[in-house]
This record gives sequence, C-alpha cells and structure tokens, in this order.
Amino acid sequence: MSSNIHFGNLSVSIFGESHGAGIGVVIDGLPGGIPLDFDRILEFMARRAPKKDGMSTNRSEKDMPEILSGYINGKTTGTPLSAVIRNTDQHSSDYGNIQTVARPGHADYTGSVRYNYANDLRGGGHFSGRITAPLVFAGAVCGQALEQMGIYSCAHILSIDGVYDEHFNPVSLEPDLFDSIKKREMALIDESKAEEMKRHVNDARMSLDSVGGTIECAVIGIKAGIGSPMFDGIENRISQIVFGIPAIKAIAFGKGFDFAEMRGSKANDPFVTDGETVKTETNNNGGILGGITSGMPVIFNVAVKPTPSIAQPQKTVDYVKMENTTLEIKGRHDACIVPRAVPCVEAAANIAILSFLI
Amino acid sequence: MSSNIHFGNLSVSIFGESHGAGIGVVIDGLPGGIPLDFDRILEFMARRAPKKDGMSTNRSEKDMPEILSGYINGKTTGTPLSAVIRNTDQHSSDYGNIQTVARPGHADYTGSVRYNYANDLRGGGHFSGRITAPLVFAGAVCGQALEQMGIYSCAHILSIDGVYDEHFNPVSLEPDLFDSIKKREMALIDESKAEEMKRHVNDARMSLDSVGGTIECAVIGIKAGIGSPMFDGIENRISQIVFGIPAIKAIAFGKGFDFAEMRGSKANDPFVTDGETVKTETNNNGGILGGITSGMPVIFNVAVKPTPSIAQPQKTVDYVKMENTTLEIKGRHDACIVPRAVPCVEAAANIAILSFLI
Amino acid sequence: MSSNIHFGNLSVSIFGESHGAGIGVVIDGLPGGIPLDFDRILEFMARRAPKKDGMSTNRSEKDMPEILSGYINGKTTGTPLSAVIRNTDQHSSDYGNIQTVARPGHADYTGSVRYNYANDLRGGGHFSGRITAPLVFAGAVCGQALEQMGIYSCAHILSIDGVYDEHFNPVSLEPDLFDSIKKREMALIDESKAEEMKRHVNDARMSLDSVGGTIECAVIGIKAGIGSPMFDGIENRISQIVFGIPAIKAIAFGKGFDFAEMRGSKANDPFVTDGETVKTETNNNGGILGGITSGMPVIFNVAVKPTPSIAQPQKTVDYVKMENTTLEIKGRHDACIVPRAVPCVEAAANIAILSFLI
Amino acid sequence: MSSNIHFGNLSVSIFGESHGAGIGVVIDGLPGGIPLDFDRILEFMARRAPKKDGMSTNRSEKDMPEILSGYINGKTTGTPLSAVIRNTDQHSSDYGNIQTVARPGHADYTGSVRYNYANDLRGGGHFSGRITAPLVFAGAVCGQALEQMGIYSCAHILSIDGVYDEHFNPVSLEPDLFDSIKKREMALIDESKAEEMKRHVNDARMSLDSVGGTIECAVIGIKAGIGSPMFDGIENRISQIVFGIPAIKAIAFGKGFDFAEMRGSKANDPFVTDGETVKTETNNNGGILGGITSGMPVIFNVAVKPTPSIAQPQKTVDYVKMENTTLEIKGRHDACIVPRAVPCVEAAANIAILSFLI
Repeated sequence: MSSNIHFGNLSVSIFGESHGAGIGVVIDGLPGGIPLDFDRILEFMARRAPKKDGMSTNRSEKDMPEILSGYINGKTTGTPLSAVIRNTDQHSSDYGNIQTVARPGHADYTGSVRYNYANDLRGGGHFSGRITAPLVFAGAVCGQALEQMGIYSCAHILSIDGVYDEHFNPVSLEPDLFDSIKKREMALIDESKAEEMKRHVNDARMSLDSVGGTIECAVIGIKAGIGSPMFDGIENRISQIVFGIPAIKAIAFGKGFDFAEMRGSKANDPFVTDGETVKTETNNNGGILGGITSGMPVIFNVAVKPTPSIAQPQKTVDYVKMENTTLEIKGRHDACIVPRAVPCVEAAANIAILSFLI
Repeated sequence: MSSNIHFGNLSVSIFGESHGAGIGVVIDGLPGGIPLDFDRILEFMARRAPKKDGMSTNRSEKDMPEILSGYINGKTTGTPLSAVIRNTDQHSSDYGNIQTVARPGHADYTGSVRYNYANDLRGGGHFSGRITAPLVFAGAVCGQALEQMGIYSCAHILSIDGVYDEHFNPVSLEPDLFDSIKKREMALIDESKAEEMKRHVNDARMSLDSVGGTIECAVIGIKAGIGSPMFDGIENRISQIVFGIPAIKAIAFGKGFDFAEMRGSKANDPFVTDGETVKTETNNNGGILGGITSGMPVIFNVAVKPTPSIAQPQKTVDYVKMENTTLEIKGRHDACIVPRAVPCVEAAANIAILSFLI
Repeated sequence: MSSNIHFGNLSVSIFGESHGAGIGVVIDGLPGGIPLDFDRILEFMARRAPKKDGMSTNRSEKDMPEILSGYINGKTTGTPLSAVIRNTDQHSSDYGNIQTVARPGHADYTGSVRYNYANDLRGGGHFSGRITAPLVFAGAVCGQALEQMGIYSCAHILSIDGVYDEHFNPVSLEPDLFDSIKKREMALIDESKAEEMKRHVNDARMSLDSVGGTIECAVIGIKAGIGSPMFDGIENRISQIVFGIPAIKAIAFGKGFDFAEMRGSKANDPFVTDGETVKTETNNNGGILGGITSGMPVIFNVAVKPTPSIAQPQKTVDYVKMENTTLEIKGRHDACIVPRAVPCVEAAANIAILSFLI
Repeated sequence: MSSNIHFGNLSVSIFGESHGAGIGVVIDGLPGGIPLDFDRILEFMARRAPKKDGMSTNRSEKDMPEILSGYINGKTTGTPLSAVIRNTDQHSSDYGNIQTVARPGHADYTGSVRYNYANDLRGGGHFSGRITAPLVFAGAVCGQALEQMGIYSCAHILSIDGVYDEHFNPVSLEPDLFDSIKKREMALIDESKAEEMKRHVNDARMSLDSVGGTIECAVIGIKAGIGSPMFDGIENRISQIVFGIPAIKAIAFGKGFDFAEMRGSKANDPFVTDGETVKTETNNNGGILGGITSGMPVIFNVAVKPTPSIAQPQKTVDYVKMENTTLEIKGRHDACIVPRAVPCVEAAANIAILSFLI
C-alpha cells in the first residue's frame, strides 16, 4: 500500500507510470451533489504543466483528464470520482541507456530493490514527477469543494536558489491575492522577483545543473476546531500528502525551524477577542495549535530539492552488473521544478483540509 | 480518530489525559516471541523524565508503566501489548485559574472548540506533553524489536536556542556512538556544548521565558528497499508520528531546507559499489529516495518550539466569557523541553521504521 | 493488526488476555460532551456476566471497568476513552494440562502457529470469550450515544439447540419491548420458552456436552441514507465486528438464507409513502438496501456454535510433541454461551451503527 | 469512503457506474514481479459474463479490461495495478422511466438519500451488479498470485431456488475438481442438477419473476496460522468483501447456521497428526479457528437474494414526488444472478486470502 491515503471519510488512490498507458486517480468519499467546474479543474492542472518560462522541459504534456465516474450533470454523484490521463507524448528511447544505471538522487535503485527489480523504470515509472498530475486533479476537485465552504488556498514560490519572494502575511490574507498569484506567469507575490529567479535557473541550465527552492502555502477561511491531536492533526495529514510529491524533503508549519531560536514570549501568539470571535495577534503557529485549527490562516512551507536529472556526467553504479560507471542523462529535464510543484503543494493542502470537513 | 496510527500491520493507540487516572498505549501487530527487556524499556522512558539538569520541572513523574497484556515470560505474545501509567503526582489546583483562559501557544482554545468545550483542560489534558510517555514506551518496545534485526536509532539535541551540537556523520555511524549519547546527562555528540546550552536555558528561565531548539535523529542498519512511494514512504510515516509530539513544528529529511540553495550536481548523492553492495558517497537525501531506504543512514531533524508555558504575564482571552484578559501561568514548567523531546523523536522513528518490517 | 477496528472516524482497540493482568479497550473518535451514565454501562456489562440460570460457569467475574481517560463530569471529553478491567478470579492451574494439547474447536493450535508458539495459552489468552467484556463496554458506551440520537438496539436469544423464540416484528418495533427483554432473566421475546431452553442446556451438560443457538438483533430509529455501497455498508461493518465474537460462525441480514428459496416478487419489499416519509410494507432486506439504511429496522441474526469446551474426553494432538492424544478438559465451562453472547452481538451493532453517525 | 478496502498491505479501490464512461479498479500493494497471464484474467472474467444458459440477460457486455499501470512484460511492477473497462453497451433509455421511482429491492431510494439525490441512477449507477466486473478482475489477479503459492480457490452454485448441488468435501479437495467446475457451463459439482435448476429459473421468468440461491466457496492449500483474532481474521475480511457484492445477504463459515443445532461433541473437529502435520478429522469450522486458518480447506457459503428487477408490476413510491405508484420494469434482467455471482464470491475470497499473505 503506498499510493493511496485514507483520511477519515476521504480516500484518494493514485496510479500510473510515466511511460505506461495512463495515469489517474480515484477519489472516494466526496459527498453527492458538489458542483464541479471542469474547466476550472483544467486551469488548475495547467498551472502544473510545463511553461514557456524557460524553467521546464519542452515536452507538451497535454494531460487531459477524462472523468470516468462520479460526476454527472456538473456535480459529484457521491460515489467514487475517477479520472484517467492518457500518456501520449512518450519518448521511451530517451531513457534507454539508464535502465539499470541508477540516476543519482532518483528512486531507480531504491525502487528496484523494493519491487524485486520488476518495476517500470521508464521515465521514473511510478516515481516520476508526472504522477503528480492526478494528485493535482484531486487537489483541484477538493479545492472547489472547499471554496463552496468559503475556504481558499494558494501556494506560491517562496524562493528559487536563494532568491526570495515575500512571505504571505500570516494574519491577513484575502482570496483576491490568491487569484492574482494563480494568474501570474510565475506564482509570486512580488512579481518583480521573476527575472532574477529565471536568471538563476538559466545559469544552472547553462552549467548543465539544476536548482531547488521553497514553496509557501496558505489556507484561509477555516474556522477554529478542525483537526485532532497527536497523529491525525492538520500537520500530520498535510505532511503525509506533501511527502508524496517527489523532491519535497522538508516541511515547516508557521515559523517552523525559526522557532528553534525564538523565545516563548515571542513565539506564543497572543489571543484577542472582539467579544465575538477569537483571533491571535501574530500567527507564528501557522494557524494550528495541538493539531487543530485556530481560525487563523493555515500556513506552511516546504523545501524542494534541485532536480536530480542533470546533464552533467555523474558517478553512479549499474546496480544489476554491480559496477561503477558514469552516467550522462539525455533527454529533456526541468532545470527547476519549483514552479511546477506549486500547484502540487496546494493540491496536497486541499486534500488534507477537505478530508477533515466531510 | 486521532491518537492512533495504523501502518500496514502495526497499530499504536494512545490514550490518557495529564490529570486523569492514567495514560497508556496499545500496540497491536507485534509478532509473537520478540524478547523484550523491561528494564531497558524503563531506561528508555527515564530519558524522557525530568532531570536535575535545571531545564525541566521539579515534578517527580514516576511514570512506571504496568504491562497489562501481550507480554509473558519476557516475550511478546503477538496479541495486543498494552501498558498503563498511573497519574500519581497531580496538582490540579496549579491549573485551577486557567480553565477557560487560553494559554497562548497551547491547545486549550482549539481543543475546546474541537471537543464542544467538554475536553479535560487540567494540565493540557490529552494535549499535554505527558502523553508522550506512552509514545516513548511504544518507541522503546519497537526499538528493541529493531535491534534484534540489527537496526539502531538515536536522537540527540542538535541545538538549543541557537547553540549547536555537531551533526551526525551521515555516511558513517556506529551503534557505539548511540550508546554513549544515550548515557550522557544531555543527549549530545559534543558534550562540551552542554554548559552553554544550560546557560541559555537558565537565562531564559530567569527572564520568565523559554527557549526552543532542534533535534536530529538517525537510524542505521536498515537495508535498501524499505518503504513505498507517494503517501506511504519513510518520510510520510515518520512525519505523521513526529507531528504527534507537542511542540514539533517542522521536519527535514537529509539536507532538508538546505536543499533549497544547493545545485543538483552537489545535492545528488553519487552511487558507488564495491561489487557487492551499493552505497552513496554523500547522504544528502537522508537515506531515502522516492520514500524508500537506500541502505544509508536514515537521518532527519525537527524543530521544537519554545515551551509555551512561561511565567510572564501574557495577553489572551477567556474564550467562554469572550473577554480579553491577562494570564500569569503558575506552576512548574520546563524552560526548555528539547532534552525531554529527544527520546520522543527517537520513539517516533522506531515505530515508523518497525512498521515497515513486520 | 487484529483487535482494532477503524470505521470512518471511530476506532475501537481491544487488548488483554484471559489470565493476564487485565483487559480493556480504547475508543477513539467519540465527540466531546456526550453524557454517559456509568451505572447503565455496568448494567449492560452485567447482561454478559455469568448468571444463575444454570447455563454458565460459576466463576464470579466481577468485571468492574475502570475508566482511565476520556470521561469527566459524566461526559466524554472527545479524546480517547479508555477502560481497564482487572483480571481477579484466575485459576490458572485449571488449565495447566492443556498447554500444548489443542482443545478441539478452540484457537490453541491456530493461535500458536500464528504467534510463533509465544502467545498466552492460559484460558484461551486473547482468544478467550472473556475478551468480549471490553467489547461490551464499548458497545454500552456507543449504545448510550445512539439513544441520544433516538436510536435503540436490542439482541435476544432466537434459539438454543433448536428451541425457538419469536422473531422480532421487522416492520414495527418499539423501545419498550427492548427494555423488557433486557430486564428478563433470559433475553427472550416469549419468556415461556425459557424453561425448554434451560432443559436442553441442562441435558447437554448432563451428557458432558454443549449446545449452540442463534441470536437476533434489531436496531430502530435510524433514518434512511446511512451507510455506503460495496465494502463499507451496514452489513460490512456489522459483520466485521460480529466475527470478532468467538463462536459466531454465520450472519444473515433480513431474510438471510431464506432468500435463497424466495421469489423476487415475494422478496422485494414494496415501498409505500404517506406523502411525507417512505417505508416498506415488508422488511425482508433487514432495513438495508445497497449497504445503506432504508429507515426500517436494521435486523440481522447470527449463529453461535456450541461451546467447544466440553468435559467429554476428546481426540486431539499435542502440537508440540506432534503426538495424538486424548484430552479431558477440567475446569468450569458454560454448556451454552448463547445468553452471554447476546449483549456482545448488540454491542457489535451499536459500535457499527454509531461509527456511521459521528 | 465505501468502495475501497485496506487489508494490511493490500488496497483495492473500485470505481464506476453502470452507464457512465467506464468502470475500473486500482490494486495497490501487490509485490513486484508476479507473473500474470492476461488471457487467464479474461477467462476468469468471462465466467461472470452473461451466458447463453437462459438465466441471464442478452446484453453483450464485452467487459474488456485495459490495464493502465502496474503491469509490464507479463509481470506486476509492484506499483498500483489499475484496469479500466469501458461501458459500451448502454441503453439508458431502458431505464428512463424509473429515475425517481424506487425499484423495490434496489438501492435507488437509499442511495438517493445517501447522496443528496445526486447519484447516477441509470442502471443502478454505482450500485449496479456491473460494478462487480472490476471486483472480478481484482479477484482474477489475486487468484493467480495465490496459485503461485500453491493456493487454489473455487466457488460453485450450491443451490438455485431450492435445487441443491453437492457440498464440497470439507476435508479433501483437489485443484482438479476446481478446474473442472470452472470449465462447466454451470459451476456445479454435480452437473446433472443443471437442467432442474434451469427449469426453475425458466419457470420464474415465465411468471415474470426471479429466483435466488446459495453459493459455496472453498480455498485450499493455505497453511495453518494465517489470519488474526477478533476483527481482522479470515471471516472478517471475507465477509467485508462479500457483502460488497450486491444481492448477498448472508454468509456462513463451515457449518454456519447448522452449528445452532449441533452439540459440541459433534461440532468440535478432532485434531489428528501423522507426526508431521496437524489436521482435523472433520472440518465443521470451515478451516478457521479464532479467525486463523487451521490448514484445512477454508469453506463458506453465501445467500443470494432473488434478482430484484422483475417484470411484474410492483407497488412502490416516487420518492421525489412522494407519491405511491406502480412500477413496471422494462429492459433486460437476469431471472437468476446466482451463476454470475459465483466468480464474484471466488474473487472476494481471493482478495481476502491474498491480503494476509503479502
């Protein structure tokens, strides 16, 4: 069991391999009658598609999902919602020479051991970043369900190779900002950083190298009291999904690692009330106390490691022949996957949050 | 559902409130016949108990677990292993005045909304750090089972208030080091840092304040191929448990957030073989690729926020009266919980790793 | 993983062995603030205790549960509710000679193979009927929560050794009848059958033998639309718990096996409406269509095999020595466990139904 | 959550509606490298397809599954195995007039209430018997995996409308018999009963009626010690899946309800040994003691209610207009679904048993 989650009444099961017949997802547990705008699902998925921003591969992944079940007359039926995306643009030969030569930083070797050397290695198989397309589909669906409850989410590029966007304002966020960010060529609060980020990515590509970054995500409109202590809180569910996105290696809620050098008097968020609702003046805890929402924006950020597929020759092994060798990865690869990971992180948040509300 | 996890064939269910009759844990899924040394379980738990190091409260938590089932003749029976720890040293009156006044940074308010204002608020109730005692019990049990497979784990204080211990050597670690660390007054690789750390904690206490820190954990002896892609890998399971420890707000595997400013050529761990086994020259990925172990040490670190209970007056609200007020927390509180969280983090790793191996 | 269930948001985890220190249960997922009458829990549990009806053993199981957590001021806290029952009346020597001689019809042999010959065999260990005490505790708790929603359940002895009580009227049932049945010495609709049933049990005991029977259970007050199709419907959840009761070997919903010889025109329950609500004129389907409640009483019955512990000499094997042998079971055993299984079946229904409603 | 199961390391998630674009299944947790013969999967599925035996509808369901992932070079990859079956032969107009008129015995009404009146009602939607096609696909896959472990399963028609086939010999069964049964026009041990069974079905059809029956299933080759006590034993998992098959209303293991009138001395299966292995002389317990296999054949049987779709006018309600009405179901319907349910029951057994072995 690996590629499915079961959170209370919601299940999401993802399948597929990069170069197989298709990839897809089954979402079980959505209530019946939720209106879903298919075009907006496509828009959400388009945010994950490679762009002309110079950061990503030139492959034209059309990624047109076909809904097979769970959706009629523009609404969920309540029974499992499934969608399949055909793999159309396959160039398997690009990967021909790396079949048993482990690409450093990839799961070729670990996956082969795990699956008795029978897994599909073409393009990373089930470990490919391509498998995030059905995750994003599910996140788009859950996001629309959340919006109907007044809950909005948005992820943005927090940094690429050390070039930083602004942070979200943790105590005051509006859906309008989210809409703007989603429409931008790069998902940034401060668009003026786009050029510098692109330059870093381009520099890396010129050096046959790649860069990483961070992504910040916020969810607003959630009332207090959602989530549970210990193993089934907001942090637990979000992180369980987030680490399903290849290349994510760290997650921090609220001030995250910065807490380590704060004092309690500064870290504690003072509560205040206007007599009707309770808020906190600051939101260092990222909207979560004891695994449960406080009513403040839920905020977290994640680290994305630099794309492991780089064009430089790399030391590695052929793990079947058990020989040391050098690998030169051919083919088309993103020099930075941070922009494409943005909607994946948002999708993870959407699925996690919705799972508490149905 | 909140305080239980279900990982493949292993379940761990934790119960109890700080000032109730008792706390405990049920571990279901352990194979029959695993030898368990009860004294070593107590030693593991003693690492979590308050110490005379000046960092923690003076409460004498005896925390003597009684095993009620699942253990006879020094071995597991295979059926559920349960243990109960009586709450003996309760001073409920210490908490008398904070019943509906939310302690900032705590889950009083969020838990009350979550549980219809019926939860046990005394001492934090089920949200208390005390509830990590049964977690540590479970981690001690799982740790012994792992050792019998040649797998060893250890957590240490990586930093307190910005004072740093050394990092674990990510490519070369021996059980002997782990044994040494566990016997030290403070769980440090470089013991010479103890004094400076204590000074910081003492400074904070003198200021009626508290400090946070980070904890690093390593697991060695795991062969390659353990774990699964997407939602059920090593990162997913470890983080799902780790966020069950109060005050943990971030987790990073391998280089974690440092990846964000690394280039792929540096971040990728080159594979090497001696013709028999495969290793990586560096271990930036913390022993995990695609959610699956690479055979290298599994390494992660977490951020611990400063203890929210501080003696300074704090702005907050009475969330029943819906009035702003000022809170002065009486009673005994740790100015730094990092040392006591160390075995909790190790316990989380033990439970997660063992769950993949039974 | 074996002795815990996870249904949507409700978890029940049972632990203990017949002759260990204690047995108990953790119920996680109950909402906070549900009033629970502890005396009524004891009354429910008393229905399972051995009676002076000549059917059951003379052991005096006091079975006094101690609630350790999850319950204050007469209400659930919302966090895990746990209870422990100490084992006090142990006569381990009674079982001394059967340690590796398999009692026919019992799980001694299968359990030993399962648990690497390390499980606790005294009195059946975790396989003992005694382990239904915490199940009944959980059922009592869930039953009170259901009553507060207007849902009532009752099980009764449908037959013992071929002597039949009446069936519940499947279309018209009132809580008053349930109350009456629960107060009777034997849980029967038609009390006049008690004497004949006792005679059969006594005859069996005189012959050093035992008898089986059937139990019928009804749940009323559930509105239509509860449950799910396929693997997570009312039948699935009830049967998953019911087969956790030792000696239950079959379950039938509504007409059950009688459907096999009915025609569709007779089996189909005609729908009728008074303009406001929908009912069915008959209730052959036991209140369940497609795994989902129809609003009619949920009705099922189960088969209880005759107590495997009988005083006659029996052919069997010593499965460690691998020798054929003859076993004479000493000690005290119920010649018929049907009466004591009645509250267990009702408990199973309560847990299953409540799990859909929280 | 409804149409997915999660047993230890195996997950099966089923999706689709009778008249939607397609139906399918995701199987997660299969080890990598299991050889699967696709033609034999089709043969297994063909056993579920309507036959020319006069019992079933004339619809030509081609039900050609397309494997989208998890299978290359004739073997499982270890990552999720998914298959989709396109719905091609849809005659939605046949069902046009029954949209909000509840078909008695069907889930139209209960499903509509459950899903906020948004579920797909065409042809029963997700509640259709058609949804068993992916279940059978999964069962065929699991069956091949079991065979590679020396485990064989077979279901047969035990009775139709009171006409009985022989029972399986519970202590001595060979794979050859299973092969023969699977090749027969009707899945019978005693083929001579076929004519009488057909006559009963035909009589019912002539009367615009339908008949039910029973199905018996056996699994051989399983060694002792598989399964767990209480909620996660062989009976629990098999019944949880079996009740996912529409029209199954009862399940009995071993002697099932016959136990109710047996004495312990007769019901207990005596153990015997030849010095090397342990068997039982009889197998009343259906190969299961305490939820765990005894090494004897696992045997159970289920009741199938008569097809609810009958051509006679039936009293019912329009549950939207809330009016009483009369329904005449048009279209093509099986007068007896027992033969087609046979491979479904076998599939359920295969999935449940395999789940304990991976």
